[in-house]
Amino acid sequence: MRAPGQFLPMVRGAARVLSTVTTPTPVITCSTASRIGGCDAVFKLETMQRTGSFKFRGAYTALSRLLTPDCGTTGCVRHEGSGGLPGGVVCHSSGNHGQAVAAAAELLGVRATVVVPADCPGVKQEAIAGYGAELLLCEPTQQGRNDAVAAVVADTGAVPIPPYNDVDVMSGQGTIALELLEQAGPLDAIVVPTSGGGMIGGIALATKALKRNIRVYAVEPNGKRLAEALAADERVPFPETANALLPTIADAIRTQPIGDVPWPAVKEWVEPTVFTVTDDQIREAMRFAFERIKTVIEPAAATGLAALLDGQILAAESGAVTGRPPRVGIVLCGGNVDLSNGLPWVAS
Amino acid sequence: MRAPGQFLPMVRGAARVLSTVTTPTPVITCSTASRIGGCDAVFKLETMQRTGSFKFRGAYTALSRLLTPDCGTTGCVRHEGSGGLPGGVVCHSSGNHGQAVAAAAELLGVRATVVVPADCPGVKQEAIAGYGAELLLCEPTQQGRNDAVAAVVADTGAVPIPPYNDVDVMSGQGTIALELLEQAGPLDAIVVPTSGGGMIGGIALATKALKRNIRVYAVEPNGKRLAEALAADERVPFPETANALLPTIADAIRTQPIGDVPWPAVKEWVEPTVFTVTDDQIREAMRFAFERIKTVIEPAAATGLAALLDGQILAAESGAVTGRPPRVGIVLCGGNVDLSNGLPWVAS
Repeated sequence: MRAPGQFLPMVRGAARVLSTVTTPTPVITCSTASRIGGCDAVFKLETMQRTGSFKFRGAYTALSRLLTPDCGTTGCVRHEGSGGLPGGVVCHSSGNHGQAVAAAAELLGVRATVVVPADCPGVKQEAIAGYGAELLLCEPTQQGRNDAVAAVVADTGAVPIPPYNDVDVMSGQGTIALELLEQAGPLDAIVVPTSGGGMIGGIALATKALKRNIRVYAVEPNGKRLAEALAADERVPFPETANALLPTIADAIRTQPIGDVPWPAVKEWVEPTVFTVTDDQIREAMRFAFERIKTVIEPAAATGLAALLDGQILAAESGAVTGRPPRVGIVLCGGNVDLSNGLPWVAS
Repeated sequence: MRAPGQFLPMVRGAARVLSTVTTPTPVITCSTASRIGGCDAVFKLETMQRTGSFKFRGAYTALSRLLTPDCGTTGCVRHEGSGGLPGGVVCHSSGNHGQAVAAAAELLGVRATVVVPADCPGVKQEAIAGYGAELLLCEPTQQGRNDAVAAVVADTGAVPIPPYNDVDVMSGQGTIALELLEQAGPLDAIVVPTSGGGMIGGIALATKALKRNIRVYAVEPNGKRLAEALAADERVPFPETANALLPTIADAIRTQPIGDVPWPAVKEWVEPTVFTVTDDQIREAMRFAFERIKTVIEPAAATGLAALLDGQILAAESGAVTGRPPRVGIVLCGGNVDLSNGLPWVAS
């Protein structure tokens, strides 16, 4: 999927489906953050999305579409309950996607099994189980996760819900852009934390369909090397690390390569300049968000704020925007951080 | 001031003045909080107001009016800069009001002096000084504060900006109700953390002017005994504690009696049932807000949420609302909590 005009009706369809169970998340400003970063920044609070992260958008959209028979009417959405998915759905996740699938399945009356690695924190297991999903512990490796999902599919006929490598999931995440463009007024750029690419792919396509001249930037944890992949025009230029998780505290965005489904959109529509932040910058940005924006964000959500505070966004935009600060939307993608042991920036 | 119809034009005037420097704070929901509390709850995020608390509304309104000559035109607001207040303004505060006055004065080009007790945490002193106000340390007693303000007034001709006992300040705080009624749709009740009474007085008058059948409830820290004062029809039924600060972690709402300016409105328009919460309930509600609502709130702001989670709001409303959950607006009044030593609910 790389054509914004072809993608837009899918995003509008996702927005209609989501409007039955969500309201637009708030958009806020913080004059101190804008002053430090030299930009006119607006923050999209996906922290306040159902289940505490943007992942609910994609999961609910994908589940709803599985329940929608093709009746031939454009935009028709019909939920048939679990009759349409007798084996339920299954996913693997150690966090946000698992909560999102579990909550979406509960709302739609569908059985859900969420495979979590055995070292998944108890608090996240509880959240997933709290939405009524069945928890299945597996070996804490990528292979262990895939094997466990395959076993559930074979046993029960459950349908897998992928976390990012899926056009339906991308269209759900793309609704962030619809809301942001409606709420924030004119923007020069949008900054999106990036892992497998489902969110930035969906946002880039939706944004370019509506406002071709808004630039979409990825922000990544140190080590992802997306700028090199974009420059080389290769989705997996580092095959030796493609299956390893990035060593970052941003636990929600540890995937190294972009998935093959979002890749064409990322390659074509995301800026070649990629913002890269360190764990220390992430911790400082989290502290800033708690203390100044009064918002609880998880490490992944702190990446865009960190890039702002570090001056990276201003530097990238200063060529295109002159005579005024660039006006930038920054997605604070989730707030699911375990605070039971204190704050990440306070030594325990 | 006790007449809603007389107060409403003042609130509308305050809203016009504030619209030049603020945007409406977000209103959000949390399905888990609503389920636990048995209400359909909406939260007004004054945490995201300029300076991190609702106090900015009253301070900016009061300063603006000091700068507005009476030109005879209804609704005319004219800011003359510091020419209109050559001695500047002064207040005493150990927190939110000081930051609010400092920020309002900076925006309006007025000199501000903020008297703070010598034991005021460094982080709050820095925030006040960060807005360009002059800090003046005093003895950490009520008398020490008053003496210091009086000395500044005598020396410089500065005009004192009271924290709550003032109709202009109340009209600024009343704009919370204008926004909430516009944003939240139909409400059965509004719950307001209460200390000196400026916020609840302003909200009660504005609410009753627009929707007479919406009930306005006060929530207080244990020991304030507002219900007894209302029942006795006495503003200061406990003179022996009237000048002491309440022993609560809710440091922003430690005043025992309602001020004499808001008292008539509180007496006439606030429900006789008052919600009362303990420090333990406040800490638990703070934890809930951080973990589930992804919002940083200070202890004072946790009081309304604590009353919801404790079932007090449902119990009070169950007589008036039947067959559905009561729909309640809860003001999360501020987010200025010092996190440098960790979280209030985590033993250090």
